Amino acid sequence: MEGHMAVDQERHARIVESLAVSPFDAVVCGSAPEVLLLTGYWPVMSASVAVFTSDGEVKVIVPEDEVELAEKTTEADIIPYKPAGLHALHPTIQSLRAPLIGLLRQLGTNHTKIGLQLEQGVGPASYAVSTQFRSSLPKLLSELHPGAEYIACDEMLESLKAVKTAKELEWMQKAALVAAAGFAPANGLIRAGLRESEVAAALQAAFESAQAAESVQRTSGYFFCMSGPNSAKAAAAYARTRQRVLEEGDLVMIHANTCADGYWTDITRTFTVGKPSERQVAMRAAIDEARHAGLRAIHPGVKAREVDQATRSVMRSHGFGDAFKHATGHGVGFAAANPNGLPRIHPLSPDVLEAGMTFNVEPAAYFDDYGGMRHCDLVAVTADGVDTLTKF
Amino acid sequence: MEGHMAVDQERHARIVESLAVSPFDAVVCGSAPEVLLLTGYWPVMSASVAVFTSDGEVKVIVPEDEVELAEKTTEADIIPYKPAGLHALHPTIQSLRAPLIGLLRQLGTNHTKIGLQLEQGVGPASYAVSTQFRSSLPKLLSELHPGAEYIACDEMLESLKAVKTAKELEWMQKAALVAAAGFAPANGLIRAGLRESEVAAALQAAFESAQAAESVQRTSGYFFCMSGPNSAKAAAAYARTRQRVLEEGDLVMIHANTCADGYWTDITRTFTVGKPSERQVAMRAAIDEARHAGLRAIHPGVKAREVDQATRSVMRSHGFGDAFKHATGHGVGFAAANPNGLPRIHPLSPDVLEAGMTFNVEPAAYFDDYGGMRHCDLVAVTADGVDTLTKF
Repeated sequence: MEGHMAVDQERHARIVESLAVSPFDAVVCGSAPEVLLLTGYWPVMSASVAVFTSDGEVKVIVPEDEVELAEKTTEADIIPYKPAGLHALHPTIQSLRAPLIGLLRQLGTNHTKIGLQLEQGVGPASYAVSTQFRSSLPKLLSELHPGAEYIACDEMLESLKAVKTAKELEWMQKAALVAAAGFAPANGLIRAGLRESEVAAALQAAFESAQAAESVQRTSGYFFCMSGPNSAKAAAAYARTRQRVLEEGDLVMIHANTCADGYWTDITRTFTVGKPSERQVAMRAAIDEARHAGLRAIHPGVKAREVDQATRSVMRSHGFGDAFKHATGHGVGFAAANPNGLPRIHPLSPDVLEAGMTFNVEPAAYFDDYGGMRHCDLVAVTADGVDTLTKF
Repeated sequence: MEGHMAVDQERHARIVESLAVSPFDAVVCGSAPEVLLLTGYWPVMSASVAVFTSDGEVKVIVPEDEVELAEKTTEADIIPYKPAGLHALHPTIQSLRAPLIGLLRQLGTNHTKIGLQLEQGVGPASYAVSTQFRSSLPKLLSELHPGAEYIACDEMLESLKAVKTAKELEWMQKAALVAAAGFAPANGLIRAGLRESEVAAALQAAFESAQAAESVQRTSGYFFCMSGPNSAKAAAAYARTRQRVLEEGDLVMIHANTCADGYWTDITRTFTVGKPSERQVAMRAAIDEARHAGLRAIHPGVKAREVDQATRSVMRSHGFGDAFKHATGHGVGFAAANPNGLPRIHPLSPDVLEAGMTFNVEPAAYFDDYGGMRHCDLVAVTADGVDTLTKF
């Protein structure tokens, strides 16, 4: 394989380093976030396959109508393929056969241990539909290159994804900036009489028409609005906008998961309709204090669970220990929300913080039949502390 | 297993029928569209697993915070599980172990051939992130129930998904109705000076705040705007909104993929900024005529490729044969766009139309550096012809 370098040299070097101490001679990935990690390209239809060898060679097989996009963000060697069109009628995996044969031939007998994504993971929505290779990619590889051994490399990929490079941090900042445009009108907009769906739609529109998106090829994302008792349900693993009409005195939670060219955010702000009640003031005071305690605890070398303890003990001291029903955070970046994304800011987490890690800090209090309040920031660990990417 | 019936008796009967002539004693599915097919429930996080046996028993393992939603649409036996929370820190698949053990014990030795989704497929975006089991589900099943044989059942599922039941057709109609709300403002909105992203955002907002959504638990979807030369690029497998400013004389293509409780649409309309040019009038005349020819060709028993021939020959007769760069359509419903979704309305398609099939009819003409026009309807095959679900 001729020498091609991924555009992000820091990332390239880290992958080479990880491969050097791994059992893998190469990794082959067909999922969008991992193709982004290995090559810098975020596939639209999840129908691209990246190969990264221990020699530092990077190639990516891309459907021909995505080549124009791929060229803008990767310097990996792009191998275009023709997915089924008017000339043929077969599943995408069959179109990958020919380019994979060429690629595997180049790998040769020096690459006999190949890492694949085989374990359960979490994938972001890259488009309205996405290709899922399931067992077809491992099966095709075994058929084309039967001499090799195929081993799960999910753990290595998760570790690599956890710590962002300087360039990836720039992308995360851009993603947070684009998301901010969606939150900007919230304070002025939220009022009694509007339906949750109207609020969510207005913020979604502000996000989608944001000028900030000009430095980005593709943005996408979701804004949710949950009001009154519905905001208490936001303790669940998912958010859901309903048709409830906002009332005076409501807590109104705005939750967003947005994306800029493959880099995701996880952000929540909570508003009140009208003057906050004493109870709401008390909730906000606790959450603000917990948030600052969490942020202060963040340093390279610190155990992730200490950050959780920092926020949780504040919530507890305010009498909101039981109301804070979930972990303080989880890794965010190559996906918006992955409870097992590293680092896990969780009471039981064995993870240790490193500079470049990005995650959310989301102290919250939920009371069934009343409402919930959450403040969720996206942060990056720096050399000497923390950078809050969500500066609003 | 005690008797529980999926809410859609017609669907239940068809699955039992398909299993009876299949090699499978049961199917086990972890992907959202197939869980919807088997149980009537569309999982939020794709972390649910459905089991349907040849005896007609249906069970679905659901994360506890989705049970409230699941109960509204399925009468299958719901087995709740606790995904990792504050008490534990492990991947979802590990939480499935206990409920799966119980389920597999009930299956017993009578169910030794189990159908799994192993082939490449296309999955809709059910949420900002979704669980992907990859090889972990087959692996766990083999470990828990090693006596069974696990065989790909993807083909059977694709056939089942192709033909909708009366209840599923009602959902498809609802989905099309909700989507219509997003298209409604387009004609009045589109004008020179707006950016594509502003147009897309406004239509997205109209869609998301639609009152029509009240009869639906969850709607989601994407509106795209591609103008001028960008509209020619819509011949690709994906749409992309950019920051281009609309100009007088532009073709403006609005493409949407929307969803109502798991039932998807694929719809496109094309507008002109200002008075259409002679060329644009000629394109529209050809596409209208092709569309009607396609719709007229649709009847149960007809070969899907004859519908493609009907539209294609009209486009050719207008001199737009080469400009019509893709197939006339593909199955739509359990996903928005799957080039291999049945029936494939494609020149090489071996598929035969049946009443209840839903697909798109999308005659189009694309000219590089100028623009593209496409009219994409969502239709259902009826006993004696066709019903256009996109009545706008």
